[in-house]
Amino acid sequence: MRIGVLGGGQLGRMLALEGIPLGNRFTFLEPSPHPPAAAVGTVISAPYDDLAALDRLADAVDVVTYEFENVPAASAHLLAERVPVFPPPASLDATQDRLAEKRLFEELGIPVVPYRALDAPAELGDALDAVGLPAVIKTRRFGYDGKGQAVVRTAEEAERAATALGLGLIAESHISFERELSVIGVRAADGSRVCYPLTENHHRGGILRASWAPAPALTRALLRTAERYAALLMDRLEYVGVLAIELFESNDRLVANEIAPRVHNSGHWTLDGTQASQFENHIRAVTGLPLAVPRARAPTAMLNIIGEMPDVTAVAALPGVHLHLYDKDPRPGRKLGHVNVVGATRETLVERVDRLERLLRLADRKESSLRC
Amino acid sequence: MRIGVLGGGQLGRMLALEGIPLGNRFTFLEPSPHPPAAAVGTVISAPYDDLAALDRLADAVDVVTYEFENVPAASAHLLAERVPVFPPPASLDATQDRLAEKRLFEELGIPVVPYRALDAPAELGDALDAVGLPAVIKTRRFGYDGKGQAVVRTAEEAERAATALGLGLIAESHISFERELSVIGVRAADGSRVCYPLTENHHRGGILRASWAPAPALTRALLRTAERYAALLMDRLEYVGVLAIELFESNDRLVANEIAPRVHNSGHWTLDGTQASQFENHIRAVTGLPLAVPRARAPTAMLNIIGEMPDVTAVAALPGVHLHLYDKDPRPGRKLGHVNVVGATRETLVERVDRLERLLRLADRKESSLRC
Repeated sequence: MRIGVLGGGQLGRMLALEGIPLGNRFTFLEPSPHPPAAAVGTVISAPYDDLAALDRLADAVDVVTYEFENVPAASAHLLAERVPVFPPPASLDATQDRLAEKRLFEELGIPVVPYRALDAPAELGDALDAVGLPAVIKTRRFGYDGKGQAVVRTAEEAERAATALGLGLIAESHISFERELSVIGVRAADGSRVCYPLTENHHRGGILRASWAPAPALTRALLRTAERYAALLMDRLEYVGVLAIELFESNDRLVANEIAPRVHNSGHWTLDGTQASQFENHIRAVTGLPLAVPRARAPTAMLNIIGEMPDVTAVAALPGVHLHLYDKDPRPGRKLGHVNVVGATRETLVERVDRLERLLRLADRKESSLRC
Repeated sequence: MRIGVLGGGQLGRMLALEGIPLGNRFTFLEPSPHPPAAAVGTVISAPYDDLAALDRLADAVDVVTYEFENVPAASAHLLAERVPVFPPPASLDATQDRLAEKRLFEELGIPVVPYRALDAPAELGDALDAVGLPAVIKTRRFGYDGKGQAVVRTAEEAERAATALGLGLIAESHISFERELSVIGVRAADGSRVCYPLTENHHRGGILRASWAPAPALTRALLRTAERYAALLMDRLEYVGVLAIELFESNDRLVANEIAPRVHNSGHWTLDGTQASQFENHIRAVTGLPLAVPRARAPTAMLNIIGEMPDVTAVAALPGVHLHLYDKDPRPGRKLGHVNVVGATRETLVERVDRLERLLRLADRKESSLRC
């Protein structure tokens, strides 16, 4: 099939690398020059709301998907009048606005942290009364990788943050949690679903640094709960494709943080740690192939390469290591690639990750501890 | 790095699919229109001996390799004056001519079947006296997939075959052997080497139908012998990249059949059956990265899709199955893709292959028995 993708970043690149062997061809709509996906398909270089470009894309493909959740939902709806679009564009409506997303969680009985919408500066006092301090002030839209949010400890900090972030905000309790987990689910058009083993995620500066999978020391009850949440959400959205939910684990309880209606950084380990990656299953779902049942092959870790490139030769010499580079120019805070590490046992894996971590020169190891 | 590839078929496609994640970009020189590699790189559409096209390729890349051993060796030598070419072009000289290849085997003490060069029709009688009947008459150059050769049982058949095949022939004993094996070796520029587990191969009509790996019921002595042959050949050729040797097993002895100075169909199982495929290791070798040590993850089989496409949805629904389609138009005898099947045990694998085989509608199951 000919697959159109809104967005041509590394996620699009990996969708194509896994989708081409299934017999598909790819066309990307991407405004930035030299996108990572250019190596694996045709690029229509235009803004996401360029009507002529959307027309060209619809003409060129059999189905459309996206690799970036902040594409204009209107563009997805427009394309859907001409060609099947998966996941359904309504998933964008539900996940682009943090307030709509919280309400969706609540409607399905999925716990969330206390929150309050902040539509006007005058509402700040009431909102802080409701959620308490410390709190997190977030933009309702277009946040990613820690951008568009601030942790505030006093009312004054809250006021400064709200002024800096603009209108259309949400205030949330800043809960303390033991760890962040994510669950990646896939749903086919016929309603069948699979979930990947849960992943434990470590962030620093709002950016995912490392994932460990399957998440260690996870009770069966929590696993089942996470899978149930994924199933509820995917069924409710009549979802087709991969969906990721970020969850906080706190006192043997899971609290939903946010949804990504796409393949997700915390699922990159599946390229080497399972028999069928999140990218393959997303492509299977949107092209109408049956889903592959994903099982973990062995304990696996994923470390992002952020900001600057490591010594690739030294990394490639480590045992059990799989390089996934995105062909992007280095820039502080930019995801340039990731490395998956597989070990026959967790001990082997931890030892290998230690060696890799040294090569990736992750500063401040105490704060960023990638150990699980 | 920017990698140039002579040839843009499925081998080039898979080299790029495995080489792009290592941060490389690909340009292919390929005379046929719409080659499989077009999905994963730039194609220079020209004959292999087009000087202007060779110039453009040399300008566009940092290193050149090939995915097809019958490219003109002169083109490889010409490119080597401008840009590094791996494997060394002399490997083409040594493997494009069956007579040179036999002499190379003999020089290194690697057993071959009795053979005799056939430069003129008058030599046929002597040649048959030397190799016996039945015999195989082969063209010295440009044979592949069973083309350019004939099994002959009488002197009359031999004469007809020799007339049909033209001049520049070789006659070989038609030995009976228990099975065909292949060994895939990789050598880096620094002389380091790795070998993949041996593969057992099943042909029909001269075309590889299935491989089983690691080859079952293989003695340690035979394994070591095959690895030694690969090492001898690669060192002698100062080889850089993947090299495959087809071997016959006969009475606990290995006899060399031929060399492919490239990634090989009998190594396609490594995409899903090992931690680092033959394609990844070839790219590592030609770009100067350290080689990955390849280990088999689990018993794996590879079945080629030949001539017509199966029901892809049904194939994709089988457990443990990995599709690798080449995006080629169906045509009798044409390789359109392959399916790798992995099983935790050999019993599971055999059962899965049975189900897959039914879907691939392989005719005449008795003759083609894919069982091992």
